[in-house]
Amino acid sequence: MVAENLCWIGVDWGSSHLRAWALDVRGKVLARGGSERGMLSLTPDEYENALLNVIDGWLPDTGRREVLVCGMAGARQGWREAAYLPVPTHLDALARSAVIPPCQDPRLRVRLLPGLCQTTPGHFDVMRGEETQLAGLIADDPDVSGFVCLPGTHAKWARLEKGAVIHFTTFLTGELFALLAHRSVLRHSLNHGPASEGLADPGCRQAFITAVRESLASPGRFSASLFGLRAADLLDANLPVGEGRHAHLAARLSGLVIGLELAGMRLPDPDAVPVGPVTLIGDAALCERYALALEAVGYASHCLDGEHAVLDGLALAHRTLAHQPLAE
Amino acid sequence: MVAENLCWIGVDWGSSHLRAWALDVRGKVLARGGSERGMLSLTPDEYENALLNVIDGWLPDTGRREVLVCGMAGARQGWREAAYLPVPTHLDALARSAVIPPCQDPRLRVRLLPGLCQTTPGHFDVMRGEETQLAGLIADDPDVSGFVCLPGTHAKWARLEKGAVIHFTTFLTGELFALLAHRSVLRHSLNHGPASEGLADPGCRQAFITAVRESLASPGRFSASLFGLRAADLLDANLPVGEGRHAHLAARLSGLVIGLELAGMRLPDPDAVPVGPVTLIGDAALCERYALALEAVGYASHCLDGEHAVLDGLALAHRTLAHQPLAE
Repeated sequence: MVAENLCWIGVDWGSSHLRAWALDVRGKVLARGGSERGMLSLTPDEYENALLNVIDGWLPDTGRREVLVCGMAGARQGWREAAYLPVPTHLDALARSAVIPPCQDPRLRVRLLPGLCQTTPGHFDVMRGEETQLAGLIADDPDVSGFVCLPGTHAKWARLEKGAVIHFTTFLTGELFALLAHRSVLRHSLNHGPASEGLADPGCRQAFITAVRESLASPGRFSASLFGLRAADLLDANLPVGEGRHAHLAARLSGLVIGLELAGMRLPDPDAVPVGPVTLIGDAALCERYALALEAVGYASHCLDGEHAVLDGLALAHRTLAHQPLAE
Repeated sequence: MVAENLCWIGVDWGSSHLRAWALDVRGKVLARGGSERGMLSLTPDEYENALLNVIDGWLPDTGRREVLVCGMAGARQGWREAAYLPVPTHLDALARSAVIPPCQDPRLRVRLLPGLCQTTPGHFDVMRGEETQLAGLIADDPDVSGFVCLPGTHAKWARLEKGAVIHFTTFLTGELFALLAHRSVLRHSLNHGPASEGLADPGCRQAFITAVRESLASPGRFSASLFGLRAADLLDANLPVGEGRHAHLAARLSGLVIGLELAGMRLPDPDAVPVGPVTLIGDAALCERYALALEAVGYASHCLDGEHAVLDGLALAHRTLAHQPLAE
């Protein structure tokens, strides 16, 4: 049963899965859907069916439904390439560079939003999907400025000025943590605790904060500090016993990789230059962890929910397209 | 057929395999053997048979054969624990702390050499096996001093003073390279070239050197530089095409992890303090790669073969024990 006020559909299509929302004219969520058919598991001619499997019930009997897609579906290996926009670029420019992929079903009117690229010599970078979360910020404040961090497997930091992305940097933080915790020699010391264990325990919290500060102050020690986790375990070096030890070492590893990320960002010294609060966008527990890391080294932050951000960004693009329909 | 002049047996027993040598009284190699029965695949009561499978042909009909073992067989999870000697320690002390594991076969007289540990607050570290290679250096020069590097999965750097290990540091360099090249998102950009591809190509050589210098100068950029490899590939950023691109990116990744190791070592500035040549011990191709990295940042080095080093170290321990037999 299609809700009467269903107006358009938003999709965040990642490497490993897709999430879809049925939305009213104001971008209010009427229904949610999703599947595990991410970009890595699809050939170009499989996208349309993968999408229909999720949203078929939201399509009209007659006429077309607008479907706005961000993320990896627009990659070169995706449904159809939506070429990266080079930074600096204003975030309201995404919709104007959307591309229309091949579709058989007459009820579909799909557009793929582009990602961003950076070709500064010595610092090449790309994002696909996160730019739409960033665009969500200008829905609230067209002149938004400051640092934004999107933690995750490939954590992104963007510097915004008056609604434009000036510069951005991707860090392999989440992937490094997962590889080290589960695939390296450190797994023998860490593998009994869940990967994203909280930092509720005061000892773990302190181990995390200490490690963040260490990596930020001495990023060159990173590789040695990693083996140091294993050595400390083998030498029973003032560590908690049993389960508590694994959680302690996992907290320390998390602090080391996040601290390395902060070292790489070279944020202005908070004692010398006023830095507005960093905006964190993403999973609540992970954003809280980043907020703790930032606080430990002198930066304020505030957290935004990742789904809200992407929906705001898709809605902004939808409004732009409604006023400037693309030629077909 | 046992050689008449066979006098003793040396064994380097690692995590994943063991190597054994039949030796004359002067430590000259008469025969070589080995197997894949490393520490990780053995329970304590399986060591004796795993050893006999390799060296049975070298045992005498009557009497006992001395077997001197270094490496992981002496770990807590090994045959029998040979407790770590804390640094600073003179390298001639290893033999005096050897332990005798349980053996049924009356022809065997096995001794396990200890590893080294470091319990400096903030810098815990351990080694097992490499200390015997280091001991090989004092066979030639009892007062050997300077920096020694043993590249590998877990690369070790030791500072020697007059034949003693003063301090050492382990870096996860080789393991980081392997995880990143084969298990991370970078595998899509690197996985068509062999992991230990040489640096014969001038472009690869230059990419390696540039990356070493970058990591040494800005270790905090490490995690961002990793993703930068992927982004450069996606953006076709002045990279060679085809096979050459994978080799180029692999060379750059290798330079980044080795540069991070050098950053962590904080060697004295070669322009300010004369630093003697770094001694590199290990696989010839890997040592050459490190020599190139060191040269690129101002340090001389010379390479020693890893097998020679461990045999010299075992022979030194054998001579020490011959003069100071352990009580049994």
